[in-house]
Amino acid sequence: MPEIARDSVGLVSPQTAHFDDPLDLACGMTLPAYDLVYETYGTLNAERSNAVLICHALSGHHHAAGYHDAEERKPGWWDAHIGPGKSIDTERFFVVSLNNLGGCHGSTGPNSINPATGRLWGPEFPMVTVGDWVHSQARLADRLGITRFAAVIGGSLGGMQALQWTLSYPERVGSAAVIAATPKLSAQNIAFNEVARQAIRSDPEFHDGWYAEHSAIPRRGLKLARMVGHITYLSEDAMGHKFGRDLRSHDFNFGYDVEFQVESYLRYQGDTFSTSFDANTYLLMTKALDYFDPAAAHGGDLARALAPARCPFLVTSFTTDWRFPPSRSRELVDALIRAGKPVSYANIESSHGHDAFLMPEPRYQAVFAAFMSRVARDLGLEERP
Amino acid sequence: MPEIARDSVGLVSPQTAHFDDPLDLACGMTLPAYDLVYETYGTLNAERSNAVLICHALSGHHHAAGYHDAEERKPGWWDAHIGPGKSIDTERFFVVSLNNLGGCHGSTGPNSINPATGRLWGPEFPMVTVGDWVHSQARLADRLGITRFAAVIGGSLGGMQALQWTLSYPERVGSAAVIAATPKLSAQNIAFNEVARQAIRSDPEFHDGWYAEHSAIPRRGLKLARMVGHITYLSEDAMGHKFGRDLRSHDFNFGYDVEFQVESYLRYQGDTFSTSFDANTYLLMTKALDYFDPAAAHGGDLARALAPARCPFLVTSFTTDWRFPPSRSRELVDALIRAGKPVSYANIESSHGHDAFLMPEPRYQAVFAAFMSRVARDLGLEERP
Repeated sequence: MPEIARDSVGLVSPQTAHFDDPLDLACGMTLPAYDLVYETYGTLNAERSNAVLICHALSGHHHAAGYHDAEERKPGWWDAHIGPGKSIDTERFFVVSLNNLGGCHGSTGPNSINPATGRLWGPEFPMVTVGDWVHSQARLADRLGITRFAAVIGGSLGGMQALQWTLSYPERVGSAAVIAATPKLSAQNIAFNEVARQAIRSDPEFHDGWYAEHSAIPRRGLKLARMVGHITYLSEDAMGHKFGRDLRSHDFNFGYDVEFQVESYLRYQGDTFSTSFDANTYLLMTKALDYFDPAAAHGGDLARALAPARCPFLVTSFTTDWRFPPSRSRELVDALIRAGKPVSYANIESSHGHDAFLMPEPRYQAVFAAFMSRVARDLGLEERP
Repeated sequence: MPEIARDSVGLVSPQTAHFDDPLDLACGMTLPAYDLVYETYGTLNAERSNAVLICHALSGHHHAAGYHDAEERKPGWWDAHIGPGKSIDTERFFVVSLNNLGGCHGSTGPNSINPATGRLWGPEFPMVTVGDWVHSQARLADRLGITRFAAVIGGSLGGMQALQWTLSYPERVGSAAVIAATPKLSAQNIAFNEVARQAIRSDPEFHDGWYAEHSAIPRRGLKLARMVGHITYLSEDAMGHKFGRDLRSHDFNFGYDVEFQVESYLRYQGDTFSTSFDANTYLLMTKALDYFDPAAAHGGDLARALAPARCPFLVTSFTTDWRFPPSRSRELVDALIRAGKPVSYANIESSHGHDAFLMPEPRYQAVFAAFMSRVARDLGLEERP
């Protein structure tokens, strides 16, 4: 392990909460019982008023900050923003980060045993929606004794969960940060998800989702899904600057081995992902993205859909994000304004495309930290020394 | 067959030209002999001065206009622009359109017999470049007695061939129309091509390119390749307007059957393509795209690379094309201006993305027709009655 920085939350351990109260899902099925794996950073104060919920994105999980052990080479996925003195300051806030239902990092999902059959859920794991996740997260909050979160925060698909919290449980959300998200996917967004799903589902090793029972892994499909996803996470400029038309060796080989650096990068990203992520989970998560559309139940009127929300919002987009571009965040901001909700909006200059939400970027950190400081101040949380 | 419109070239028949003079290729291999399949529309005048060459794009072929027979439901791929009175007016011009080497529509390619082995070329068909294509097209011109084309014209990958003609054979090009093209692919362009190639090559039915000998077709891979390609051909707006978030039936099925219309459309496009196009050809063509970069041999200085050109250019882009966006066409225009070449540039307002180059669009047609009229006038071709 690299030396732990002073502004790291340090060594952390996941915990598991088991729930026996059945969870009714939007798809009509009921999950009889389930586990949620989560981590916490910082300390819950006596008033239980300083809790912050982190919601993860498509391929995310509960390990948002710090290190699990001495062997871990990289810290949690949002370590740039969570820690002592960071935007989400663990000296002031008690941070909760969980793996969503349907996930493949310990929470109940396709790789868990279906108690009704005694075999893995596999492809029979019920489809879960952003609303279902928020419901299950509220139960985790109950378990932790958290009546109301000081803030619910997420990027991308995580931002959709933060938004949904303000609609499903308005009285339990003190503030919401919706980062690099969209109030609903576009046809193009759905199209990219569909390519990823087709890649996985058409892999002969997928076995209609029963690959585990065949001791198989649909690696080719997962690799392709990740490759196409990855293109949408990076800006064209970032890809251009990072790789351009640089060749792996000094000349063309006129064959199908890697020639351009960008090919090498994508293949590596795809290969890595294909051995670490679960195919059924990936399918579920892309569907949750596609389904999310809070305005749909209100005739497409987003402002009307947002009526229940009662908290101030921070909406953040990134200039070169073409997956969920700034225009999608502005759609949300406009609707929040029409709905009379307090909202701060920052469109952050960044060359990193959608991935920018994961990265340290001074202006992003400043905007985020200012928002969280205000949350702390409004709650009367102790100022940092 | 629908009733043939008065401005159609009508029924047309492909012809085959066989070449026995070996063709040296950029990859270092030599093609000992080859066929080129082509069509012609209109009449070559006595001076042989009115010939126009049409170069095709990634999945194109020689059948650019008219109908092959009474059963054909749709005319050739550029019928909107080729015919009596159309932009490329067959009452004035003699139009030549061929299937490129490596193609799968009759010209020598992976599905032809390799005379050295007696079996199909398959994956051993040599890699061909835009320069190689232009070389082979010049030989076809020789065969047809065409010393100099009044115009060489192409969209997308076809535009790259038109550009290459002005550099490889400047004295044989009267004018060049480079439409919806780019002087070189970006890292993101290459990345999308690489996803398509990986989809095809990782399909177990690909058999390292020897699928024909296994009586197999890598349909899954071709389908995925086409799906991802298709997303890049349409603008986000066009996809949004065409499909939005419309559902196939009136509600979610919470499963992986088609839910959104855009999924249905993409699957259909992919399925159709996967039964009609050859995988090895698709791989070759994407590589030709990746390799194209005339500035590379001149230290990246495109203006210097363009020095040999001697003709006027028409460069056309489309506002919502994000595959080869207007900025890429402007790169070419700027370099042409720096190189002191006459160039007209039109950025056409269109909602159709990259596909716009295939479509009828009044301003596009007007710009194109005006350019071609000038070509005709400069050559003293008879005015249309």
